[in-house]
Amino acid sequence: MSKLLIQQADVLTLDESERILRAADIAIENRKIVAVGNAPRDFVADETIDARHHVALPGFFNAHTHAAMTLLRGSAEDLPLDRWFNEGIWRTESALQDEDVYWGTALAACEMLRSGTVAFADHYFYMHHAARAVQESGMKALLAWCVFGSDFAPEMGPTTLELTGDFVAEFQNSAGGRIKTMLGPHSPYISSARSLQQAVHVARKLGVGCHIHVSESPEQVANSYKQHGKSPVAYLNDLGIFDLPSIAAHAIYVNDDDIAILRAKRVSVAACPKTHLKLSMKTTRIVDLINAGVHVALGTDGAASNNDLDLLEVTRLTALLQKHDTGDATVLPSMQALKLATQHGARAMGFDDSGVLRVGADADLILLDFDKPHLTPRHDLAANVVHSARGSDVNYVIVDGKVLLRQGELTTLDEQKIMREAQMRGLRMVGSAQRQTQLYQG
Amino acid sequence: MSKLLIQQADVLTLDESERILRAADIAIENRKIVAVGNAPRDFVADETIDARHHVALPGFFNAHTHAAMTLLRGSAEDLPLDRWFNEGIWRTESALQDEDVYWGTALAACEMLRSGTVAFADHYFYMHHAARAVQESGMKALLAWCVFGSDFAPEMGPTTLELTGDFVAEFQNSAGGRIKTMLGPHSPYISSARSLQQAVHVARKLGVGCHIHVSESPEQVANSYKQHGKSPVAYLNDLGIFDLPSIAAHAIYVNDDDIAILRAKRVSVAACPKTHLKLSMKTTRIVDLINAGVHVALGTDGAASNNDLDLLEVTRLTALLQKHDTGDATVLPSMQALKLATQHGARAMGFDDSGVLRVGADADLILLDFDKPHLTPRHDLAANVVHSARGSDVNYVIVDGKVLLRQGELTTLDEQKIMREAQMRGLRMVGSAQRQTQLYQG
Repeated sequence: MSKLLIQQADVLTLDESERILRAADIAIENRKIVAVGNAPRDFVADETIDARHHVALPGFFNAHTHAAMTLLRGSAEDLPLDRWFNEGIWRTESALQDEDVYWGTALAACEMLRSGTVAFADHYFYMHHAARAVQESGMKALLAWCVFGSDFAPEMGPTTLELTGDFVAEFQNSAGGRIKTMLGPHSPYISSARSLQQAVHVARKLGVGCHIHVSESPEQVANSYKQHGKSPVAYLNDLGIFDLPSIAAHAIYVNDDDIAILRAKRVSVAACPKTHLKLSMKTTRIVDLINAGVHVALGTDGAASNNDLDLLEVTRLTALLQKHDTGDATVLPSMQALKLATQHGARAMGFDDSGVLRVGADADLILLDFDKPHLTPRHDLAANVVHSARGSDVNYVIVDGKVLLRQGELTTLDEQKIMREAQMRGLRMVGSAQRQTQLYQG
Repeated sequence: MSKLLIQQADVLTLDESERILRAADIAIENRKIVAVGNAPRDFVADETIDARHHVALPGFFNAHTHAAMTLLRGSAEDLPLDRWFNEGIWRTESALQDEDVYWGTALAACEMLRSGTVAFADHYFYMHHAARAVQESGMKALLAWCVFGSDFAPEMGPTTLELTGDFVAEFQNSAGGRIKTMLGPHSPYISSARSLQQAVHVARKLGVGCHIHVSESPEQVANSYKQHGKSPVAYLNDLGIFDLPSIAAHAIYVNDDDIAILRAKRVSVAACPKTHLKLSMKTTRIVDLINAGVHVALGTDGAASNNDLDLLEVTRLTALLQKHDTGDATVLPSMQALKLATQHGARAMGFDDSGVLRVGADADLILLDFDKPHLTPRHDLAANVVHSARGSDVNYVIVDGKVLLRQGELTTLDEQKIMREAQMRGLRMVGSAQRQTQLYQG
């Protein structure tokens, strides 16, 4: 039995009525919130957090990332999507070793915890190493081992659909339920129809869903019509992918029929606006999707395109970019933007009891230190969080009732060691790609 | 004589050849940089900064803000420009007291120093109070007292063109040269032709220029054609404004003829992309302006629309939004984006010896602590600064050779006192506006 008491926080509950409580207590017993407002009189805490000058809200759920790509941060700059892939990432990733995934994911966990993310949906390789980092960090995660399933792109290392099925069978609901899994077929433009059908078959057998990239560029959509006579969304739907719980990453180039499918099949779209801006991809029409009833969550994508893993920044960019693109400054007010980053992400990732501060919910929450000039005055707490705060204002992170960041210090991970290893491994990978390029050009 | 030695920094000089130095020293004597690379052997410092794991670069120049509007942060959310003005800001500002400007500007100074800004171009009211905050903070500033000069909008308090001329005469080159001044006619859409002509006359007599809002909305441009038969830029040019050193804030809706004028008259355009996004204004065509030879600098605008005063964030948004709007991911690489935020701003504000790290330049520089997970690994220092760093990574700020932020602590300002006063005054202003609205509606 472990009891945690947070005292005197201003609380953004993000519940249905969007209640804001002032100087409120939050009582946590084991993994659950047992009181919000006033703690029970007989509640004797093992740890008490003095949260004066702090704002509490649910932690962030990063619904699409490639965590270990932190190792490639800043290695392929100022390139459009196709050149970013072909000249940058795919060359560098050919030097990826399985152990790199542990260190890159551990670095990602440090960075995400420090900016208030409690859970992430990861889509990468050698995922048993990612699982180890998640286990140690105390975070929650939805892990998908990426399978190209392609007639032309070789798989990464020993990856096969069977292997990734074994990964699901071994890790589903592990780490006390903190780790969930999906299958990770890469995308309709790389994966063959046969491999996608096999993925549906295996996922159904294992009782999980799929996390997949969808409609990132006009070329992908045009090729889909050329090869299959239909859009990528319609194609995946006809193959049965969306009959399973699904995360569709990006979904930028979708038409009205696609939107109807995404709504009907309750697909979660994970929008990654910072990557979209950086690679000049245009962006997910979040407001249109929401108005049509599609479930939208937010992701960072990998740090090789997004350059960091800060979901608070993504939340801000979501609100700003939708105001810009729609020409309507009233869309995505701060409370709504925060819900995309919290409860929408939690639902997309299958953590249905999380993403809101209310009695009975999982104790996955964060405290921002508001005793800062850029968060003064406090006319609108939600606006201050979305449009003025930084990831670095996160002072406490609590996952399943356990304090993972305490007064700005990580409690579970050896940050200095992780940074040293990540620096070394990142340099090795990029150096190796550069040598290959020289050989090729020489 | 004061001597400062920075040791073992990785240095982004931002000079013509965009040199990056590793583990380099920077020696500062009084207000100037006397060495970059290796300090002179006989250099005996009064203070030595161990800058291992730090990246040094020129400090940021915020080329357009209304500093004291920090008091209204978060008070008028999710509104388009016209409603933001009419329903939000102008009502609240009717409760502005002269002393509020001191506290609001002091709060702004805390926030700007903490995020690496060394100088700001301010455009507001009661500017002798702003000057006092600048003086105490140790920052540099270009101060302009806003005059509406309108047939319909009453001036703020005792403001007259003569008074603002007196302000220029008294404060130009004060605080050891740290304070410069301009006149601040509000805009071609509020200020009358007569008042703009008078401003030109007075500015010329005083040997200063004008800081003015230009072409923020299609309506402003349409009205200018209706009233004057020409664009706002052509109109201001014909009135002689651009024959003086000028900062044109925003300049979103400009045509090719306008761009030719801005280039020919060496006008500095101050783009404020975060405000543009937030209020759904579209944004300054920075890449087009730069390609046409126009001088472009960056600003935050006020915290009532921008919600913070973080020029590093604005620099990132500039690069991201230009990539998005142009559809070209190669535009505004990180080095170029940083130059807009540093030397371009310095020139716009008349601090011609600043904005670059080289011998003989003013010692206006910042050190970012790179010993952080989100800044690891270090494949590309400039990209890590622009696309991964946060304002909170700024650990040292040096202006005119004086350390104003030391290991994250402000050395000149009483931050706690300033936050308390700002909170109280901000609540008073917004509360007063709300009471007025209730009376009006009751």
